Amino acid sequence: MEALLSGSCSSGISLKSRLGQEGALGVLGSETLGKLSFSSQFQKISLKSWEKRRSLNSLTMQTLIRADGSSDSPRLDVSVSPRVNSLRPSKTMAISDQATALVQAGVPVIRLAAGEPDFDTPTVIAEAGINAIRQGYTRYTPNAGTLELRTAICHKLKEENGLSYSPDQILVSNGAKQCILQAVLAVCSPGDEVIIPAPFWVSYPEMARLADATPVILPTLISDNFLLNPKVLASKITEKSRLLILCSPSNPTGSVYPKKLLEEIADVVAKHPRLLVLSDEIYEHIIYSPATHTSFASLPGMWERSLTVNGFSKAFAMTGWRLGYLAGPKHFVSACGKIQSQSTSGASSISQKAGLAALGLGYAGGEAVATMVKAFQERRDFLVKSFKAIEGVKISEPQGAFYLFLDFSSYYGSEVDGFGPIKDSESLCRYLLDKGQVALVPGDAFGDDKCIRISYAASLSTLQAAVEKIKKAMLLVKPAVPV
Amino acid sequence: MEALLSGSCSSGISLKSRLGQEGALGVLGSETLGKLSFSSQFQKISLKSWEKRRSLNSLTMQTLIRADGSSDSPRLDVSVSPRVNSLRPSKTMAISDQATALVQAGVPVIRLAAGEPDFDTPTVIAEAGINAIRQGYTRYTPNAGTLELRTAICHKLKEENGLSYSPDQILVSNGAKQCILQAVLAVCSPGDEVIIPAPFWVSYPEMARLADATPVILPTLISDNFLLNPKVLASKITEKSRLLILCSPSNPTGSVYPKKLLEEIADVVAKHPRLLVLSDEIYEHIIYSPATHTSFASLPGMWERSLTVNGFSKAFAMTGWRLGYLAGPKHFVSACGKIQSQSTSGASSISQKAGLAALGLGYAGGEAVATMVKAFQERRDFLVKSFKAIEGVKISEPQGAFYLFLDFSSYYGSEVDGFGPIKDSESLCRYLLDKGQVALVPGDAFGDDKCIRISYAASLSTLQAAVEKIKKAMLLVKPAVPV
Repeated sequence: MEALLSGSCSSGISLKSRLGQEGALGVLGSETLGKLSFSSQFQKISLKSWEKRRSLNSLTMQTLIRADGSSDSPRLDVSVSPRVNSLRPSKTMAISDQATALVQAGVPVIRLAAGEPDFDTPTVIAEAGINAIRQGYTRYTPNAGTLELRTAICHKLKEENGLSYSPDQILVSNGAKQCILQAVLAVCSPGDEVIIPAPFWVSYPEMARLADATPVILPTLISDNFLLNPKVLASKITEKSRLLILCSPSNPTGSVYPKKLLEEIADVVAKHPRLLVLSDEIYEHIIYSPATHTSFASLPGMWERSLTVNGFSKAFAMTGWRLGYLAGPKHFVSACGKIQSQSTSGASSISQKAGLAALGLGYAGGEAVATMVKAFQERRDFLVKSFKAIEGVKISEPQGAFYLFLDFSSYYGSEVDGFGPIKDSESLCRYLLDKGQVALVPGDAFGDDKCIRISYAASLSTLQAAVEKIKKAMLLVKPAVPV
Repeated sequence: MEALLSGSCSSGISLKSRLGQEGALGVLGSETLGKLSFSSQFQKISLKSWEKRRSLNSLTMQTLIRADGSSDSPRLDVSVSPRVNSLRPSKTMAISDQATALVQAGVPVIRLAAGEPDFDTPTVIAEAGINAIRQGYTRYTPNAGTLELRTAICHKLKEENGLSYSPDQILVSNGAKQCILQAVLAVCSPGDEVIIPAPFWVSYPEMARLADATPVILPTLISDNFLLNPKVLASKITEKSRLLILCSPSNPTGSVYPKKLLEEIADVVAKHPRLLVLSDEIYEHIIYSPATHTSFASLPGMWERSLTVNGFSKAFAMTGWRLGYLAGPKHFVSACGKIQSQSTSGASSISQKAGLAALGLGYAGGEAVATMVKAFQERRDFLVKSFKAIEGVKISEPQGAFYLFLDFSSYYGSEVDGFGPIKDSESLCRYLLDKGQVALVPGDAFGDDKCIRISYAASLSTLQAAVEKIKKAMLLVKPAVPV
């Protein structure tokens, strides 16, 4: 095992000793390690050495407490709430953290696991943030966000999405993730069902669980470009169905729902007075012609049923600023605001000024966003062409976002000398990390074990290197089922 | 009624017409108005005119939808989750928003309701935020916060609080509010009891409700400086008691728990293996000699039971940056991190760099914080002296934070010509807003209806003006019960 790992490193220092260095472990933290479900061989080693260190720390801590005169009871109840136990941590974040740690340990891993643009925040936006700080705009904002930002969001939704909202129908949060969780918490009662087409963004089912609701997963087919079949939807709606979550352009598939399909879905939804729709439109601007974006709320009869989520992280390369928003009918948005007032209050005042500048860049983010989208499209074209040339890989060409969701299942059942069986998306990704030093995300995390996700939020040259490494690694694997 | 309101305005324009202006209503939003439980006469008027506008908007919206060809079902289920219905929105935020709206409507209200320092973020901290943006430090951070910030927090806790934590025992969040909610959600199972001494910070009981736990309120006495009596605590602990929430220095009372009292509380806590303690230390640095701050976790045997919450908003005048942290045993902090990974992910990368600079200012925030604390102390001294001179007002001199919690209950039962009865803290605050144009918070919001809270996060001259206005208004009120 160790020989293999050393062999896959570019220098002579053994990986184990590198992982033992303070830097790598420090960055990971046992909390990060603890939540890794992606059981790479790297992880096993690092976990072990970390656990050893932890128990030493823990011992020191105990001794410190005892020295303080502790009468610490051994019976202390350290259980956590069942809601935490039912919750799985974000797999994409865990894998991304693991890849970071490997890079910092000196392993030349190419990281294509993260859902984060590789561009810097556009200058005009950055300057607006700087000005906010300079002008002392560093106080609490209203819980729902500043009026000027909510007004600008209304303007954007009207101009770009054909949606009419007033500022009191907008809630600004610390990122789109918070918007979605709060919406699920606000509209779902215990026992309700949340319908989630798979492949799905990893957090949707967990959020349903946090709301004591039941995630109902509807699989889609790569031959349907991973788009939800309205007939399947119709057959799965029950009286408990409260929320359908749509994501277009989609993470992880890059699929974009055509307007006509959304209309068919709306026809199904319209028949069920309890069914609301959360439309996650965070990748709206990252879309490749001729695909176009349709807001679900703009469809006839859907405005009153829709909760539209969007944000600044993806289109404007503002992930670290933590800024997203929800638009919807007043009673639902108010309910979300009530939860937010007791959980975080308003988002960063600085980020809100930056967000305002982002919306001032013009239609669909203007030139600044168009430049990034052009780069993403070139990368997509390169990757689609490259993976089409790999035997046994099935592709649905993405029309948006910056992910490719590739069906590698024809390789499952294979063996690789010195590695072992490739039996699912997790073992394939582990193999590609160990052998190819490319970090991808197993499709299992997104509810489709046939596939793996590659994020192309990386330069073309990085992607070229990654494709070469993946190709080379896959040459050692013989497809179990010839295609 | 309208005559009274017009009379209390400084210019000739009627308040009603001013409140009807776009600006004022826009800022409030019907969401803000909707959540006001502080039923000022101002609110009644503004709510009415807003509702009228809303129904017009709503009508337009309906027409738009119908024009789009909507087959919108009238039976659409617009209910929200019971968890939202059981939740009360933050009263302090609502009142603060209302006062803002009145100011923007031209009413010269002195706002002493907010829990926010009136100082700017110290320059060194602001510059660190600016540098973060300039250097493109605008990407996702790890969910738990950057390692450098968590390391600096460990150092601070060791140096200033005598607490030993490793970085994986720290969770950085979007403000201390999020830390507390996540801690309550993580450790409390449905049916558990959360023990909260009153007067309490408004959000504690709501957070317990969000966790399906039962808030158990333990009243304290002004004659005990609003400090929890350990015997009362001992008598209220049951097998369902899971969490005791302590806040020192306290919002809303300014009380500081002496070490000896905390030790007595720890003795009670130690007898109950299920009982954990959340110690909210957000006002730690705003403390007036000879009072000193003791971290509950530093007491013998308490480290393993304690969740220590702190943040940057109050001491460093960083409310708008949204940055707080939790320190505790690994299993609890991990559980909180799991919730955070599915709700907001890490806090703003920019704010984390600023937070790091704040911790670099030196012991207890160094000179920058000492200057602010000195100003707060002068204001406290002035207010204590002033209110002692008002007949019938009971005072517990605050030792920290920037609030004075005054017992005005001797005035309850009085009538004021042209206003009506003053029967509780809410009607008193309404009277002081209407007649005195000073915005305070009714003690009822904090679980003690005898008192009202005055925030002295305002300049000495503003406070002097406020005292004059309050004195003048109170002259018209005759105490019902002579003291």
